[in-house]
Amino acid sequence: MRVLSGIQPSGNLHLGNYFGMMKRMIEYQEKSELFAFIVNYHALTTVTDPQLLRTKTLEAAIDFLALGLDPQKSYFWVQSDLPEVQELTWLLSNATGMGLLERCHAYKDKVSKGITPSHGLFAYPVLMAADILICGSNRVPVGKDQKQHVEVARDIAIRFNSMYGETFVIPEADIEEEIATIPGIDGQKMSKSYGNSLEIFAEEKTLRQRIISIKTDSTPVEQPKPTAGNPLFEIYSLFLDKKERENLKDRFETPGLRYGDVKKELFGVIWEFFAPYRRKREQLATDKAYVVGVLKEGAEKVRGVAAEYVSKARRNVGLNYDDL
Amino acid sequence: MRVLSGIQPSGNLHLGNYFGMMKRMIEYQEKSELFAFIVNYHALTTVTDPQLLRTKTLEAAIDFLALGLDPQKSYFWVQSDLPEVQELTWLLSNATGMGLLERCHAYKDKVSKGITPSHGLFAYPVLMAADILICGSNRVPVGKDQKQHVEVARDIAIRFNSMYGETFVIPEADIEEEIATIPGIDGQKMSKSYGNSLEIFAEEKTLRQRIISIKTDSTPVEQPKPTAGNPLFEIYSLFLDKKERENLKDRFETPGLRYGDVKKELFGVIWEFFAPYRRKREQLATDKAYVVGVLKEGAEKVRGVAAEYVSKARRNVGLNYDDL
Repeated sequence: MRVLSGIQPSGNLHLGNYFGMMKRMIEYQEKSELFAFIVNYHALTTVTDPQLLRTKTLEAAIDFLALGLDPQKSYFWVQSDLPEVQELTWLLSNATGMGLLERCHAYKDKVSKGITPSHGLFAYPVLMAADILICGSNRVPVGKDQKQHVEVARDIAIRFNSMYGETFVIPEADIEEEIATIPGIDGQKMSKSYGNSLEIFAEEKTLRQRIISIKTDSTPVEQPKPTAGNPLFEIYSLFLDKKERENLKDRFETPGLRYGDVKKELFGVIWEFFAPYRRKREQLATDKAYVVGVLKEGAEKVRGVAAEYVSKARRNVGLNYDDL
Repeated sequence: MRVLSGIQPSGNLHLGNYFGMMKRMIEYQEKSELFAFIVNYHALTTVTDPQLLRTKTLEAAIDFLALGLDPQKSYFWVQSDLPEVQELTWLLSNATGMGLLERCHAYKDKVSKGITPSHGLFAYPVLMAADILICGSNRVPVGKDQKQHVEVARDIAIRFNSMYGETFVIPEADIEEEIATIPGIDGQKMSKSYGNSLEIFAEEKTLRQRIISIKTDSTPVEQPKPTAGNPLFEIYSLFLDKKERENLKDRFETPGLRYGDVKKELFGVIWEFFAPYRRKREQLATDKAYVVGVLKEGAEKVRGVAAEYVSKARRNVGLNYDDL
């Protein structure tokens, strides 16, 4: 089974990314063929600062490698190192009705806000379809907000296959409904855009301060503390196994617990947990040439898979005038 | 000066194509850098029969080579042998407002007819802009109906340059207003879609019949014949120099001329005129591998030019994460 996962080059991974996405990626890399790529072409629809895009692309690669993405066990590359995906996008475009794209939420949202979007933003779902179809992906794990894009890819693949003959694997969205929402320091869902995240690779001082800022209630010290809906308990629990979590629950429910003490303790737990990853990341950051080499090798590897679908699609639409 | 000209792989060239386009191409090939390419990616927006596209692409190449396009003096390739143009299309898409594309006539016409066009048809002008910009074209000779597309390419290039820094040459449309309209056998403009054309490489018998069908008036034999607006005179004139044309005019104005005789004579003139091209074409048709070789060499040659603009554009938008 082939599983595809796009990585935004937006940098600054937080606990939500780690427990929501990264852990699943590691699972997929062990039990299936994982195709993981950094979507720098897509990022162009929003990032217009070239220096930022350059830096964030490499940083994303370093972060994912540090956190355990294994380029030996997966396909790991930067989207723009497989420019064939753009050719496929064009071939798919001719099997894509305008209505399909006009119905996409991301586009409709912009229009309803009175923003005139770029053609890149409008055409984005076709590129995403090409990303998915070029590797013969069976499954695309996405959040609910991205479900529509995978459906668009399915529709395009089905239409293309019916217009030009069997060419693509029809992918399926793998909606991650089961994953518990990971709360941010204010108790809402942890998200970069809410400014409530705990970054995995934050500086020690910053991380400590952020943890101290986790929102707690005003239960007096001498009373039992709530655990359900308590972000301090929930964030801490991410790092515990079942038994440890029971112990923590007992401690919260036993009078006398001071939130301040738990926060200090949690800092230590998080800091320790990511220590090996941090070291790995520091080491990778000093050897960017190695990281680039890994990505280039990954691109070569995925190119072998992509060539099959691209050449089949080229042939099926009739670009092969040279097949004498 | 770089001049770009796209060739539709629609086949069956007629006198209008030859005198309207081909002769200009030959001029450009002598006095400037001519970039001539067969637009098979574009054709996908309308041609959904792969076998037809395949055949017509190679036939277009054979026809143009037979008629004097010189791959040594020009860049001559098939669009899909330069897939880099699709990558550039994506980079341009992010500098292309949706409004620009929505205003394009070709798209608006379809919508007004109640047709829901494909995304390919909508995005076509961005691909055309990439075709133009990828070779640093200064001039694009086009008919009036294509003027808007060159303006779109200008707008996109200007926008891109202002967003990301100087990257592209700003092209200019070279509107072919001076070319006299070449009449078809019914006196209307010669056009494949009007079914009134004289095909350059028609079979002898077919061509003879088509020429006999040229619409003539009912002036009696013993009276002078009109020349202005007389398609027989105008078509014949295409093959004559100034002095010969005066002579023909005299003959038309002298009583006794029979249209039927002139038609037989015209068949001989046309058949002779294209005889060397026809022989060349027959010869090329027996050596398709040679033609494919010429096209592949052409693609290599244009790739050298394209690489400059593609790599500059990639760098300027920030895809070069590997520039350490």
